[in-house]
Formats: sequence, structure tokens, C-alpha cells
Amino acid sequence: MEKNESLLEGIKKPSDIKKLSDNELQTLAEEIRKVLIETVSETGGHLASNLGVVELTIALHKVFNSPHDKIVWDVGHQVYVHKLLTGRYDRIKTLRQYGGLSGFSSPDESEHDTFFSGHSSTSVSAAYGIAQANKIKGNKNTAIAVIGDGAFTGGMVYEALNNAGRERSRLIVILNDNDMSISKNVGSLAQHLAVIKARPSYFRMKAKTEQMINKIPLFGSRLSDSIFRLKTGLKRLFYKSSTMFEDLGFRYMGPIDGHNIEVLRDALEAAKSANYPILLHIKTTKGKGYNFAELEPSVFHGISKFDIDTGESISSGTSFSNEFGSLLCNFAGNDRRVCAVTAAMSLGTGLDTFEKLFPSRFFDVGIAEEHAITFCSGLAKGGMLPVFAVYSAFLQRAYDQIVHDAALQKLKIVIAIDRSGFVTGDGETHHGLLDVPFLNTIPDITVFSPTLYSEMRNSFVKALYHEPAVTAVRMFKGAEPQLPEDFVPSFEDFDVYGNHDSEIAIVTYGRLFSASAKAKNILNESDISVKIIKLNKIKPIPVKAVENVMNCSYVFFYEEGEKSGGCGEIFNMMLTNADFDGKFCLKAVDDKFVQHATAEILLKEYGFDEESISRYIQEVIS
Amino acid sequence: MEKNESLLEGIKKPSDIKKLSDNELQTLAEEIRKVLIETVSETGGHLASNLGVVELTIALHKVFNSPHDKIVWDVGHQVYVHKLLTGRYDRIKTLRQYGGLSGFSSPDESEHDTFFSGHSSTSVSAAYGIAQANKIKGNKNTAIAVIGDGAFTGGMVYEALNNAGRERSRLIVILNDNDMSISKNVGSLAQHLAVIKARPSYFRMKAKTEQMINKIPLFGSRLSDSIFRLKTGLKRLFYKSSTMFEDLGFRYMGPIDGHNIEVLRDALEAAKSANYPILLHIKTTKGKGYNFAELEPSVFHGISKFDIDTGESISSGTSFSNEFGSLLCNFAGNDRRVCAVTAAMSLGTGLDTFEKLFPSRFFDVGIAEEHAITFCSGLAKGGMLPVFAVYSAFLQRAYDQIVHDAALQKLKIVIAIDRSGFVTGDGETHHGLLDVPFLNTIPDITVFSPTLYSEMRNSFVKALYHEPAVTAVRMFKGAEPQLPEDFVPSFEDFDVYGNHDSEIAIVTYGRLFSASAKAKNILNESDISVKIIKLNKIKPIPVKAVENVMNCSYVFFYEEGEKSGGCGEIFNMMLTNADFDGKFCLKAVDDKFVQHATAEILLKEYGFDEESISRYIQEVIS
Repeated sequence: MEKNESLLEGIKKPSDIKKLSDNELQTLAEEIRKVLIETVSETGGHLASNLGVVELTIALHKVFNSPHDKIVWDVGHQVYVHKLLTGRYDRIKTLRQYGGLSGFSSPDESEHDTFFSGHSSTSVSAAYGIAQANKIKGNKNTAIAVIGDGAFTGGMVYEALNNAGRERSRLIVILNDNDMSISKNVGSLAQHLAVIKARPSYFRMKAKTEQMINKIPLFGSRLSDSIFRLKTGLKRLFYKSSTMFEDLGFRYMGPIDGHNIEVLRDALEAAKSANYPILLHIKTTKGKGYNFAELEPSVFHGISKFDIDTGESISSGTSFSNEFGSLLCNFAGNDRRVCAVTAAMSLGTGLDTFEKLFPSRFFDVGIAEEHAITFCSGLAKGGMLPVFAVYSAFLQRAYDQIVHDAALQKLKIVIAIDRSGFVTGDGETHHGLLDVPFLNTIPDITVFSPTLYSEMRNSFVKALYHEPAVTAVRMFKGAEPQLPEDFVPSFEDFDVYGNHDSEIAIVTYGRLFSASAKAKNILNESDISVKIIKLNKIKPIPVKAVENVMNCSYVFFYEEGEKSGGCGEIFNMMLTNADFDGKFCLKAVDDKFVQHATAEILLKEYGFDEESISRYIQEVIS
Repeated sequence: MEKNESLLEGIKKPSDIKKLSDNELQTLAEEIRKVLIETVSETGGHLASNLGVVELTIALHKVFNSPHDKIVWDVGHQVYVHKLLTGRYDRIKTLRQYGGLSGFSSPDESEHDTFFSGHSSTSVSAAYGIAQANKIKGNKNTAIAVIGDGAFTGGMVYEALNNAGRERSRLIVILNDNDMSISKNVGSLAQHLAVIKARPSYFRMKAKTEQMINKIPLFGSRLSDSIFRLKTGLKRLFYKSSTMFEDLGFRYMGPIDGHNIEVLRDALEAAKSANYPILLHIKTTKGKGYNFAELEPSVFHGISKFDIDTGESISSGTSFSNEFGSLLCNFAGNDRRVCAVTAAMSLGTGLDTFEKLFPSRFFDVGIAEEHAITFCSGLAKGGMLPVFAVYSAFLQRAYDQIVHDAALQKLKIVIAIDRSGFVTGDGETHHGLLDVPFLNTIPDITVFSPTLYSEMRNSFVKALYHEPAVTAVRMFKGAEPQLPEDFVPSFEDFDVYGNHDSEIAIVTYGRLFSASAKAKNILNESDISVKIIKLNKIKPIPVKAVENVMNCSYVFFYEEGEKSGGCGEIFNMMLTNADFDGKFCLKAVDDKFVQHATAEILLKEYGFDEESISRYIQEVIS
């Protein structure tokens, strides 16, 4: 594409779109798809969801005036197009890179990004708050939530619809229905949507705007209450059923073709003129316009670098997720009580094989972590051994349920925490830095944090067959780290590595053992003797691990997580109680949200690489 | 009532009900109501909700076989009748007392109590888990969730219905619709239920079972799929609309009279014979059978001791809740940006006056704490100053939203935490012992923990007008404590009380300052000089407060909350970093759930009264 011919390059702000003709908008959509595919093939990221909202995003900026009208993108898997149209085209190649554009919505980046995003099902609540603020202030700006059918399985959406449906406000909820959450969409809602889509749309829009205005007085004219009531009545008469959105007080429009810019524009114009909440149901194809992504939208949901011509991504070898998935299949084969539960993350958490082998004991509950934990509690009450596989950052939504329905009941449920610690590329909302602090607050639960696959397997044996109640096993993203050959795991609650008589101890767990072990060797070269206490059970912290360092002059605690409430503070309290009189130094993430970058860069930035560790220890002891 | 004449006394286990005739069941219901009113008038507790489920509970135990069939009572406001019928009649007078019966469902107490309860909207998830376990095990036991229309506003219910609706399992969800959650029920669901109730029930049951069986083949016969489909089809044809429960895959039965034991029994028998999920919609009157409670169900939802003849409870004087409510009205009168948000707890959190004075800025979002926080974030984004008033124990449901939608966005929302610390009577699920630990894990937020009303007011001024982002103010239940006359609050981040040069310091916050101050005086009498650092801002902990005790030989930290992740460990870490060489002793609740009792008893039990504090300090320093 010649630079001068690019329409996209001419879009410096969203209002620039308003000048383009219908034909130019089509061309723009093509240009955007090309840029999306090229960019993500190099940076990795969310491709399929963005390909699905090209026309929607164009139509939104054609009709509305961001940032006065505010668009809240649910989860934020689908904001690349929005970024391209809001002045960030020239930086798109920096996507998800350190110092570059975030892969999600980020208010730090642009006034057009209303909210940070990353967790699911929050957009309707946020947009409704904005709509109510607009109403109190007396302006006529619109708040728009764009949310996929996958995110619609989260309970917050229902809380928000129930709350918003009875109030007049300029709120538009766009249900982007692509038959597909991250895993195949599940549950009754999906079936309900299928039923809606199967019947002829009362609001289906044909060809040209003029024709439409004549045929359907709804569009073009203000949507008055009475017209809407009439139409709803007619619709019910015709189809003998309503949608649950109407039951919840929303005016339903749809389903319409989400890849037809003109139809979208007309629908949005109509919705914009209303002063009550609208649910606009659009049908889109995830991965639209890129064959490989259309065929395998799950694979192209979040993908690493890939070859555009073949659609093949570079395989990343073994991973904790896959090793865990195989392990759980073994358990399930030998023990009919073992169940696997996922919140729409079957592929990401390595459960895809389990799903095929043990369908009656596999439960994809939708994007519903809260329900997942309490459902597991019910399974456990009924005598099953449920294992809930979940990303660290998403588990925090179920904090109350872990407390109230699992730990308090002393029920034996196992939480397989994936993506703990720093997570490459996704940023603030996806790091697993809080699971240790928030699990530490909960009585009567056990947490393991293995470093190696073999330790992970051992942790699950303990979790399923030895621990009395709720047990979590933390895994980080990717493969087990390289460790020194002389380290042999004990599979006990903690390991001691290095010179057992050293006056200097490093206490750590999980991935950081790797850098710590290397740091030990660097220090050994300077004749500094170090022992490492590698905690495997981190809650409760083994008393003997504390006793082991009581005679040390220096204890360095390294923790890949938020400091406040983490294991380091607890370890220090145990030392204090035992009248430890050496020096205790705690290195962790200090009460801040961490931006996107590779895990490698972040480990270095926070002083968790071998050079930083050895340098810091040398500084302190000298 | 003569002892020999009491049917209730003869019910030692639920199966004893099965022997009673229809007339005897009616008499039993009357006896139960009398016992409920007498008991709660003396113990305090949840009266109105229990009066509403007398017939339902009898019918449930008549039809099902607990504990093989498992009943999960949502929230657990309504389990007193169940307790009376499951062998606990002789202990009912110990309700909510130390060592006595819990006011909620408690598996520690009886095999018939399936789950601990206290938080809302969890029952469908738990019951569905049990139903799936039954299915995997191949038995035909039924799992039953009993849930009110108030609890139905919580998003977890929707997650669970969406998940359960598509699967065959022996799950019955009983929607106990009494037009009334704790505050007046709000939102679109309530309207939807009203619509359903207004139309003639297709499943309405008349007079006698025999007649019914003839007229409506649904009951008495097995509910076959085809019959149900036919009926549903007919219903849709007739009423031209369905219920949203059907949209979510459930078979809907109702609405039926929830005070007619025979009708209930027949409906439950019919539901029992199905092997797919049923939603049974029953209409009940909250407070049924006690005039005062029927007229003012909100007042009799949770009530302290009252006079049976007049319905009047002993007024408890001023409280933090009421003082907060008045304060917020003052703010709102002067600042049009101030909004109040509650999750169905308008009365309990003191917002009832605000609701009347500022209806356009008052939002009761339903029992939906998650949505509440994100909705507040939207309001703040739109330029408002939202204040979310919420009980400590219920705030934990919104942990993820506080992280993801409020703190990460650096939005200025204020969380008014009511019922922090020990809460009288309600037990494990209602103490506010976790809010400090879980808020401590979150970057970029501020927490105040005042002791006096005046300090509470000052904290809200700071929260609304001086702090940059999310700020929480913690209040305990009841009135401000009596403090020594020579204490004059500074309204700074911390106060120093007592001899500033003392080598012994007590560091504490909130309610415990009262007992600490008295302990100081006790110690003074033994010529032991003590100073108290009373923290007002507890997150972040003021550095100067730490500096203030650096020269002390002993620092005693007292904390009315869970130890792990609390302020004491953080304070200790700050001392460690500053090379403090005195003795640090932390007293807090040590990693356990706390049973029900009065706050006074619990404060003493955990060593938080003046005698325990002074005694402990004397022990340590001698």
C-alpha cells in the first residue's frame, strides 16, 4: 500500500472518520484488517476479536463523538481498531511492547480510552455509571458498552442490566454476538441468543437508509416511548416470546449484521436518539476477513507471533498449562471423583484434552469465576474432587466465594492457578501479583508454589490426597526454568540449596528460585557463601524454614508478587516472634500496578534477575 | 401451650413430619410461628423472613429426605424453621448466643445444614454442584436452593442459572418471592416478577390435590419432557411472553401460594419427579402471621429484642450508621456531585434519609456489590463523588472490582465500610475482620479507621476532598466508645496519647483505642508508663507513626482483624526496615474464622479488653 493512498494514515482523531464517504469507509475497513493481521503476526496479541469489530468500531466513531460520548470496551480484547482510529496508528507496531501501546484499553494512553480493561463483564456497570453522571449533569452525551456474548455469561452484566433497565439514561449496550467466547460459548444464554437469531429480525435492516426510514419508522425518527411499546407489542404478538433483555427493562434492537457499516450506522443513530437504555444485538464473525482466524477463532483469540501465509504460530514447547492438563487427565483416569472446572479458559489452562476424555466431569461454567468456586464447593460437598483451573488475575473475582463457600466450609477444592507472577504482554490487569496476598488473608487454606513440573505434580498429589481443605497450586506462564544440575528437589515443604551453614540466606519460591540459584553461584565466585530456602508450601509458611535461617546474619526474601500481604511480611513476622536478630531484607513489588512488558524485562526491572540479586546482596552485606 | 400438646416438641428429626396429617401440619405451622416470635423477641435476629417460610419449610421436609436430599438456604436469613424441624427445637432459645445455635445455616451444628451461609446469591451455584455430584455418582437425590427475590438480584445467580439450565440434573431452585429484599426490592427483575404474578398462573393450584391431578396432568404424573414442552408452548401462546428463567433453560412452575402447605407439597412432589432443573416460583408474605412484621418487614428483617405486644424494639441510641447518614446528607446538600450507593442496605447503612432527600443521586443497585463498585467507578469517571455504603463482610465480594475498576483507574470513589471488626450475633460470615487485610493488598488506595464520630466526619472530608483516589472509611457497629476525658483528637493521620517519652508503646486503631486507653491507665497505676499511637490513617501507615516508636523498648500492636495481611505485619516490616531493635508484639485474630457471640464477649476472648491488654503487657515486660 502506498503511503499516500492510505486512508488510515489520515485519521488523526476519531472525528476525521466523519468526513469519509461510505465507499471510503469500506476501504478503511480493508486497510485496518491488513494492519491488524500484519501487526499481530509480529507482536502477538488478540487478533480474532479485533477482526470481528472493524465495522462496528468505524460505525461507532462515525456516529458518536468520543471522548464526550464514552465507549467502554468490555475486557478490551477488541480495542486495536479503536486505537487505530484514535490517533495511535503511528504507534501500532509498538503494541504490547515495553514502553509501547497497551494491548488493552488504557486511559493513561488516550482520552478516548475510557477505562482500563482486562477483566470481563464490567462494561455495562461502568457505562451505566457514566450515563447516570451525564443525566445528573444534564448533558446529552451517550455512554456505550461494547460487550461480547462470552462476557455476557458473567454475573455482573446481569446485576448491571437489572439496575440500569428501569432508569432512563442514555446508555447503549452493544452485544457483540460472535457465537464464541474464548472457549466455545456455553450455557443457556448462548441457546437463547441462538433462538433470537434464528427468527426473522423485526429490526432487520435492509439495503439503504432511505428505504429503511420509510419502511420502519423507528429509525430516522426519534424513538418515542409509544412507538417502541407498539413495536415491542407487535414483536411479541408475532414471535410469541420476548428476549430476556426486555424482561430486564432494556429496549431490544436486533439482531443486525455487525459487518455492514451502513446498517450499523443507522442502528446506532437510532439508538443515540433514545433517552432510555438500549440493547443492540449485532452478529459478527470472530476473525472476519482472515481465513485462518475465521476457521479457528479460539486459536487466534490470543496468539503469539505467526506466519501470515500459513497461519502457523511458533510453538512454544512445553508449559505448565499443558503439563497440568496431562496430569489432571491421569488423576481423572484413576479416580472417578476428579472433576475439572474452567471459567471459559479450557484451552488456556490446558484442559482441552480433559474435556474430550472426561466430558461428564468437565465443566466450562462461562466467564463466571464466582460461580465456579461455589459450584466446586457444591461438587466437593457431594463427594467429588473438583479442580478449578484459572488465571491468577481472574481468580481474584472469586475472593468472597473462596472465603465464604470454600474455606469456611473446609471443603476440599483445588485451585490450579495459572499465570501467577509477571505475565508477558498483557499488562496491569493480567499480572498474577495479587493471588499470594489475597489468599494469605484467608484462614484454613493451603498454597503451594512449585518451581518445576515434577514439583507441580507433587503439589497436586498433596492437594488432592493429603491436604484437608482448600488448596491452591500456583504455576507461572510458560515452561519450567533451567536450574543448576546439582539441585535435586526434595518434594518437602521447602528445600535448602547451597551451603547449609551460610550466614546469608535467600528465601524465595516459584520462578525466582532460578535467578536466586544463579545469583548464589555468582556470589560464590566472590567467596560469598549463600544458602537458598526454596519454599514449596507458602501458606502456611513452614515453621522449620524460619528456624533454618534463625542463625543467619542476613535473610533476603525475594517474592514475585505484591509486597503488602505477601509471604515476606509474614516470614518477617515469624522471625520477629522468634527474636531473630539478623538483618531481614524484603524484595517484592512495592504497592504498585505493573505495566506491560515481557516477563524477562519485568523480572529485571524489579531486581529479580541473577545480576540484580547478587549485586543487591553484595551491597547490603558490605 | 401444654407440653404434651406440642407437635413441634415431637419433631426430633425431619422425617417425623411425614407422619403428620394435613391438619396437624397446619397446627405445626401455628406452633412454629409462636415459637419464632417468642424466641426472636428475646434473642433478636431475623424474624420476618422466617415467618415467611414456615409452610415452605414444612412442605420441604414433608416431601424430601434431608440430609440425602440437600437444601441450600440462600443467605440463611430464613433457617430458624428448618432448625426447629431438624432436632434443634430444644436449643432454639440459645439462638445467636455465645455457644448456642447460629443464626445462620451451620454444618458444624447439624448434618441438615448443607452450607454455611450469610452472604447472598450463592445457593444456586452450591446446589447445582451437589446436583452434578449426585448425577456423577448415579443417585437420585435432589439438590434444592431456596432463594429470595432480593438475593436474585445478585449476579452469581445468573451465572449459576446460565450454567445449570442446559444440563439435566435434579436441581430445584425455589424463588421465594416476597416483593421485598432487605430494602424494598429494586430493579427490573422485580418488575418482571410483578408482571409474571399479575397474569393468571398457568400452574396455579386450586383446592385439593385430586382435583388438581385431574385438571392439570402436570402434577401427580411424572413431568415428562414432552408434557412440559407442551405446557410451555401453551403458556407462551396464551400469554405471549415467557419468563427469563425459561430463556435460561429452566422449567418454570408458578407462581403458587407459598403459604398453602398442600399446594406447596404437590408442587414439590411434581418437581421432585423431574430430572431436569426446575424453577419453582412461590409467593409469600414476609412477616406472615405477625401483624407488626407484615406491616414493616424491613424493620423486622433483622431486629434486636422487642416487645411482642407492641412490636417495639429497644432503641439503641446513636450509631456510626446514623451519624454517617446525616453527614452524607450534609455533603450532598452542599455539593451536587455527591452520590450515595447501596447494595440493598439503605436502612442498615443509614442512607434512608439520603434516599428521601436526594432521590436522583441515590442508587440502590440490589444485592450487587460488584456492580456497585464498578458503577461508582463510572459515576466518578463522569465527574460525580460516589460514596458506596456497605457492610465490611459484603464488600469482599467486590475485591476484584476495587482492584480493576476503581484503584487501577485512580478514580475517586469513597467506600463507607459499616460493621467492621467483630459484629454481635451473626457469626462467621458477618464479622468485618478481612477488610483491612484485603484492602491492604491493593495499590493506590487509602483507608481511614476512626474511633469517634468527629473523627469519622473528618475522615469523610478527607476522603471526598483531599485524597486523590479510592478511599475507604471503616466504622464499627453501634455507637462511638467512651474515651478518657483527656483525649483530644488531633484529626491528623495518627494521635499520640499518654506519656510521649514512654518506652512502651501500644499501636492500635478504631474501636480498640478505647480498651487500650483504659489499659494504659491500669498500667499507670502500677507505675508503668505507656504511650498509645492511635492510627487514624491505616493505609498507607504514616511513616512518622513508625518513627515515633523507634526509640521504644516495646511496641504492642493491637488489631481487631485477621492478622495475616493486616496492619500489624506491615508496621513490623516498616520497623524492620528502619532497624528497630526493641520488642514488637502483635495481637490480632490469628488466621481463623470467628463464631457468633456479642462483640463484647469476642473482644474479651481475643484479648482485646483493657484487663487482657494490661495483663499481657505486664507479662511481656517483666
